[in-house]
Amino acid sequence: MTQLTQDALVERLAAIVGTDKVRTDADSLETFGKDWTRIYEPQPSAIVFPKTTEQVQQIVLLANEAGLALVPSGGRTGLSAGAMAANGEVVVSFDYMNQISEFSAVDRTVKCGAGVITEQLQTYAEEQGLFYPVDFASAGSSQIGGNISTNAGGIKVIRYGMTRDWVAGLTVVTGKGDIVRLNKDLLKNNTGYDMRHLFIGGEGTLGFVTEATMRLARPPKNLTVLVLGVPEMAAIMNVLHKFQSGIDLTAFEFFSDKALNKVLARGDVQAPFETETEFYALLEFEAETDAKMDVAMQLFEVCMEEGWVFDGVISQNETQAANLWRLREDISETISHWTPYKNDLSVIVSKVPEFLQEVEAVVVREYPDFEIVWFGHIGDGNLHLNILKPDEMPKEEFFERCAGVSRWVFEITEKYDGSVSAEHGVGMTKKPYLHYSRSAAEIGYMKAMKAAFDPNNVMNPGKVIDMD
Amino acid sequence: MTQLTQDALVERLAAIVGTDKVRTDADSLETFGKDWTRIYEPQPSAIVFPKTTEQVQQIVLLANEAGLALVPSGGRTGLSAGAMAANGEVVVSFDYMNQISEFSAVDRTVKCGAGVITEQLQTYAEEQGLFYPVDFASAGSSQIGGNISTNAGGIKVIRYGMTRDWVAGLTVVTGKGDIVRLNKDLLKNNTGYDMRHLFIGGEGTLGFVTEATMRLARPPKNLTVLVLGVPEMAAIMNVLHKFQSGIDLTAFEFFSDKALNKVLARGDVQAPFETETEFYALLEFEAETDAKMDVAMQLFEVCMEEGWVFDGVISQNETQAANLWRLREDISETISHWTPYKNDLSVIVSKVPEFLQEVEAVVVREYPDFEIVWFGHIGDGNLHLNILKPDEMPKEEFFERCAGVSRWVFEITEKYDGSVSAEHGVGMTKKPYLHYSRSAAEIGYMKAMKAAFDPNNVMNPGKVIDMD
Repeated sequence: MTQLTQDALVERLAAIVGTDKVRTDADSLETFGKDWTRIYEPQPSAIVFPKTTEQVQQIVLLANEAGLALVPSGGRTGLSAGAMAANGEVVVSFDYMNQISEFSAVDRTVKCGAGVITEQLQTYAEEQGLFYPVDFASAGSSQIGGNISTNAGGIKVIRYGMTRDWVAGLTVVTGKGDIVRLNKDLLKNNTGYDMRHLFIGGEGTLGFVTEATMRLARPPKNLTVLVLGVPEMAAIMNVLHKFQSGIDLTAFEFFSDKALNKVLARGDVQAPFETETEFYALLEFEAETDAKMDVAMQLFEVCMEEGWVFDGVISQNETQAANLWRLREDISETISHWTPYKNDLSVIVSKVPEFLQEVEAVVVREYPDFEIVWFGHIGDGNLHLNILKPDEMPKEEFFERCAGVSRWVFEITEKYDGSVSAEHGVGMTKKPYLHYSRSAAEIGYMKAMKAAFDPNNVMNPGKVIDMD
Repeated sequence: MTQLTQDALVERLAAIVGTDKVRTDADSLETFGKDWTRIYEPQPSAIVFPKTTEQVQQIVLLANEAGLALVPSGGRTGLSAGAMAANGEVVVSFDYMNQISEFSAVDRTVKCGAGVITEQLQTYAEEQGLFYPVDFASAGSSQIGGNISTNAGGIKVIRYGMTRDWVAGLTVVTGKGDIVRLNKDLLKNNTGYDMRHLFIGGEGTLGFVTEATMRLARPPKNLTVLVLGVPEMAAIMNVLHKFQSGIDLTAFEFFSDKALNKVLARGDVQAPFETETEFYALLEFEAETDAKMDVAMQLFEVCMEEGWVFDGVISQNETQAANLWRLREDISETISHWTPYKNDLSVIVSKVPEFLQEVEAVVVREYPDFEIVWFGHIGDGNLHLNILKPDEMPKEEFFERCAGVSRWVFEITEKYDGSVSAEHGVGMTKKPYLHYSRSAAEIGYMKAMKAAFDPNNVMNPGKVIDMD
């Protein structure tokens, strides 16, 4: 890779950003060299903290000149090792590019530096009487630049879409070192190829996002939560279909009884009702009027009469809504105790029951000693498959056997025309499995895109695709 | 270009699609060689009508082998000469690829051949109790493939977005002749670059869309229309802002008194009210409940009290709503009598008043003999500037002088960070002006995209960008 000595590298970087914005201490290398995946050892050569788009450009030009590899670093909450620096890369942290500016009430937009934290934007929007709707567990640490680069999803996608849908405009530094301003924040702009969408979800491999203008929404009114006990997966789809024909849902999540029982065992949330069922659906909607609430209750009654639902509870106020949400949102943290092996799969919504059943059957057959916990954003066709490590099994053996599970699961995913990464991205951990979701021709064109924007392969090399 | 003789060309095409699916008669060449622009003379060498994606692939492979230029032909309602064949090209018509299939009520999706007519999809959706929300004047002729390739917008963008937002998945034949299925109709799929969005709005220059899975929406309930008389442009923005803070609008259009007077002069629609103002706003929203209607009336009263609005009328039933829409929708056809010179501009919404004023001032100053008619989708920042030809002025002189107008207008558009083509695309007519909206670096990357998908420049060459 680089021809620079470590001292020369630090000196060149310091000349761009200042001495105090380059770090090479062991703590920083460890902290900024990794994301939430714990598979690779972080080994960056330096961490650099630019404050402007122009400084990022200078770093990229230096990388091209000196053969550096750059890894972008946001909140480092990724789950696919997209922000790992395991091979002596220079990590470019956006922590100092965290300004929110140029709010426009009429346009309902606001400009964010790449380093703005999701929650910071959510709070800012709230202060303006508006709403930033992309939300997920890591909102307190994840950064807007990272959200955009991974097209983050979360718990409100059924109503509000992915991060992609909220990006009015982007400033990027491409791998060639060009500063490009994409779409200029316009609502309508049909002037040739919309390359903004390549950088959204591009995982920093084509260029780094340095600034973005994000759209904001009208805040939702009186969000109300229903939790329903559903005896079988197919019935969940009937419930979804029934409710969607009557009201606009803001969330439609599901979890299995195993997931619920793990959460309840911690003792700090209550069971939603006494009846036990194999699956649970959590629905959220805006009950702006009594009439809307009446419609929801009628839909619930139809679902009960049809036998799709065995029991249910509805929130009467914000606190109750928050408590019901905990049944779903506490799952991830609760099961982290069992070092779960996670897969983030999606198929089209109507195929979910059959797909889930087939995956479960294979895992149960091939790995009878593993416990499976399902939950996910079922209204989007997105299932999180979690396999829990048996307490007595060593971590290495568990992950090795899970790699075997992956092949089975991804073959089924391919058969169902699904995605091997619905919202977590590809990074390094899903790269070997990309071909299950993308054809050889597609991967060929992806490489051509990469070559066009980053001919020297300096931007997050080794992530998403390999350039040979 | 091609080395084939005309006879050999027809023979090779017929070998792919059958003799009856190749036409070279004068009528067909004239009809299929042009779109709604009337600037260039159609001069295709043949029209070919494939029935399958595989036949399109064979045509593209032949084009690469024999050096043919291909022009895609949908409903030919384009306004930027994107589907013109003026240089001996082979026109690929999608008229026979008009099947609607694989409707899924749960997924709310339906598969369309590229040749499905917009209205055909709208009607189909209605029959399933759903709604295809992209709508515009040419919906009775335009085809889905063309809508996707031009990312068609229209009158409901403020609520439902552009065509881009309704494409779940795409089948395309790239310029290299690969059949690629993009996104597989998934709601969530973060497996690398989303190249679907390059083909949407790509105007057939990277490849041809042959099939698309389109999303459908819940049908709107009790659509209600308000027409307001507004004394000045800045007040329209206040009205927009006020209403958006209270209800979700499905449309927010505007037109000038000049536009209204032209429509009223035809005598088949009535003035909305007696008060005359310089501008009119048309708002549409779902009045599902009486409570919603009350909110709308309260917002209207605030706008009156503030002096932003001088008068207004609200529809009480569907017929009244349709009649109020005619005040806006009849403008295009009405002014076509004056051979209008059209520009389709956009800026961010908050800049609209200042931008409109500056454009108007320049046109009035430089071209005092021209009459200007403004209307457009102001809720999206999209203004249609129409300059009417003085009756006595010859067409040639008028268009020549209008080219002078364009330079002035596009310089202002550039200054305001706007778009020289908000929804009409680039084609041939906006190609010389692309640099007012896209930087040299962006255009360079666009050429690299084109080279990657269509290295021999056989797909709609000479449109959007020139490959030198």
